[in-house]
Amino acid sequence: MAQKPSIPKGTRDFGQLEMARRNYIFDTIKSVFSLYGFQQIETPAMENIGTLMGKYGEEGDKLLFRIQNSGEKASLAPEKGLRYDLTVPFARYVVQHREEITFPFKRFQIQPVWRADRPQKGRYREFYQCDVDVIGSDSLVGELELIQIVEEVYRRLGIRVCLHINNRKILAGIAEVIGAPDKIIDITVAIDKLDKIGVDAVNAELAERGLSEQAVQALQPILNLSGTTAEKLSALRTILANSEIGLKGVEEMETIFGLVESQKSKDRCAQSDFSIELDLCLARGLNYYTGAIFEVKALDAQIGSITGGGRYDNLTGIFGLPGVSGVGISFGADRIYDVLAELDLFPKNLQSATQILFAAFGAEELRYALGWAKELRAHNIAVEVYPEPTKMKKQMGYADAKNIPFVAIVGGDEMAQNKVMLKQMISGEQELVEFSELVKKLKG
Amino acid sequence: MAQKPSIPKGTRDFGQLEMARRNYIFDTIKSVFSLYGFQQIETPAMENIGTLMGKYGEEGDKLLFRIQNSGEKASLAPEKGLRYDLTVPFARYVVQHREEITFPFKRFQIQPVWRADRPQKGRYREFYQCDVDVIGSDSLVGELELIQIVEEVYRRLGIRVCLHINNRKILAGIAEVIGAPDKIIDITVAIDKLDKIGVDAVNAELAERGLSEQAVQALQPILNLSGTTAEKLSALRTILANSEIGLKGVEEMETIFGLVESQKSKDRCAQSDFSIELDLCLARGLNYYTGAIFEVKALDAQIGSITGGGRYDNLTGIFGLPGVSGVGISFGADRIYDVLAELDLFPKNLQSATQILFAAFGAEELRYALGWAKELRAHNIAVEVYPEPTKMKKQMGYADAKNIPFVAIVGGDEMAQNKVMLKQMISGEQELVEFSELVKKLKG
Repeated sequence: MAQKPSIPKGTRDFGQLEMARRNYIFDTIKSVFSLYGFQQIETPAMENIGTLMGKYGEEGDKLLFRIQNSGEKASLAPEKGLRYDLTVPFARYVVQHREEITFPFKRFQIQPVWRADRPQKGRYREFYQCDVDVIGSDSLVGELELIQIVEEVYRRLGIRVCLHINNRKILAGIAEVIGAPDKIIDITVAIDKLDKIGVDAVNAELAERGLSEQAVQALQPILNLSGTTAEKLSALRTILANSEIGLKGVEEMETIFGLVESQKSKDRCAQSDFSIELDLCLARGLNYYTGAIFEVKALDAQIGSITGGGRYDNLTGIFGLPGVSGVGISFGADRIYDVLAELDLFPKNLQSATQILFAAFGAEELRYALGWAKELRAHNIAVEVYPEPTKMKKQMGYADAKNIPFVAIVGGDEMAQNKVMLKQMISGEQELVEFSELVKKLKG
Repeated sequence: MAQKPSIPKGTRDFGQLEMARRNYIFDTIKSVFSLYGFQQIETPAMENIGTLMGKYGEEGDKLLFRIQNSGEKASLAPEKGLRYDLTVPFARYVVQHREEITFPFKRFQIQPVWRADRPQKGRYREFYQCDVDVIGSDSLVGELELIQIVEEVYRRLGIRVCLHINNRKILAGIAEVIGAPDKIIDITVAIDKLDKIGVDAVNAELAERGLSEQAVQALQPILNLSGTTAEKLSALRTILANSEIGLKGVEEMETIFGLVESQKSKDRCAQSDFSIELDLCLARGLNYYTGAIFEVKALDAQIGSITGGGRYDNLTGIFGLPGVSGVGISFGADRIYDVLAELDLFPKNLQSATQILFAAFGAEELRYALGWAKELRAHNIAVEVYPEPTKMKKQMGYADAKNIPFVAIVGGDEMAQNKVMLKQMISGEQELVEFSELVKKLKG
């Protein structure tokens, strides 16, 4: 006998329940995206290797899955690689199709990506990303709509969240005023870890990265700013008074918070399920961000960020189209799945699509059952017919295993009366019903 | 400036209209699958290379996309390859998860596959397959349900089709009675081409493949059998009288046609949009089929088969689980797309999800528009707000390009009256409306 088959490490099979749950997440997200006029695109799993290389840093290049060339070119360097994220293919798409696209371009994209990371709990080599972006406008209405989308998606999923927001221009301003404008990347990389490693370790890392003790000290009051959003922004106005870019960042945040405030629902009592916090320690690792940056955390689960993104002013520049500003966020489907599972928030009726199973005692009864099944499907009811007139126990076991709520038992007596014996699987109740009654019960 | 970016040959980007159309096809197919209790699974894009190798013949092995190993193993033979079809991963899935699966197992799967074929018109290196299978039962109710699914899918899509059906056991019986039982594969491969190359070329190929002149002659009356299905089956009973397997095939076809006949809708006048034909020249190339085989052709488009499949008795044997019978079909999404496009059968309202665009004259009007937009979305209406109060002509052009049917124009007057100026884009009509009227118009 052959060895039991397996799949590559870091990849997963999704069975029926997992698929139903994943589709529930994707469908919820898609329905909200659509309300805001975002439309779906898809790009190929493979991109030319030149499209991918150098876009994710040295470490990222190593994590690309490369496709071996076929035929004569097999020994040469690979020409193609698997998609590593949806952002670079999106930038490539925008540049390649710029003549056909209507700007501002509002697109969403839900597809798997692949990374040759070391697999570990919650980290896979194949996973889905759900990205939504608007590109070709620098209006902060983009930021507002993404915030509204985040609020609505998590309201529909029933997850209480806090959206953390910051601005790269503010971070750049801080680097300027503490006298280390060239260290902006080092500063963002270090303070991005504040949550994980604490302030002392961050300060040590800043020093290691070449920040003077004076600069590290100057940074401390900023890291510890507290109060309301208005108070924090007001304090920043003073701190960043000599930094043009820093003040621009403060102004953007004032506008965004003003827009959000002006659009707050007055009639929604569930306000407390969603909050926004200006978080000056939020930096986000990716270096293409140039304005607002976001991260969303679930309040009732310890799982890190479940959605993140930001404003970029030059994403398409790498492909020869500079000066196109956009803003986007990405929903982490796997983490959202884990949160919904942990908090038991998945709807209960997802598992079985099938509403009724027909179980027949003999060949003639089976044919009779097939006729009823066909008619029920014309009423848009999902029906299965056990394909063989085998032992009733086996047929019932099938309904049980698949969580099918009703079984219609068909024997000679039922056929003679033009009825079926309807069994409710949970209560065990049985009753003889005719077709119209059956439709009514299943529709009700 | 960088070179204009591109994608690997044989792959495609799908824009918003194409995605809307593809989703229409997938959603239609999925909704029918679900009515019959088939449930979705997904498998990883990558499989271990041993899972794929040797499953598609020598030619197929060459067409596998292999993933280069990372790290130290980079110089060794690749350990992973991209999915070549959905059938082999399905067989692997069934064997790997056999303890968790309830049999008969009714699954569908809609995912891309990759083949390093030479790209040409209508043939891509990345394309989607939509497979539906029931495995773990040899009941011919499986065949019936797949036939019903084909009929219903194409009825919903509005495509007139003919389902061609044959049986591998009949072909094996024919090979026996013409005295060439060991040539069954040669015979099926050759007569599979009858449609394309004609009877003379098929006969020449049969001779070339080592069939005696006598055997080729004995085959002719079978290739030319005509009459009704009942007449053909009756003639086959005589021809195959000495072949046990051949008679078994005839019996299976009688049962399948009997089931189909017994389940025909009496009240459907559109019967003529779907027909089934016993086609003794249908062979299908794949060698794992052991019973009924199907192919579906569109009557109003010259495009070859748009759906195909059959019964297999030992698909999981290659992974160490012998004796599990199943039957399945695969819908060719790309070809269905081409047929719908050629016959202009796509619904007209697919392109724009957005029902209304708000166009504001100034910053204050924009904020006012954002409030209306938010309220409309709470009524489940898809709304966009042009993100900048730019020239009205530009905002209108955006609605035009995206086929958005309504524009709500907001100026100071409208704001003062708590109304918007609603413009119908096709007729050009304008009227001042308040919120409740607007909801009514957009919902109606």
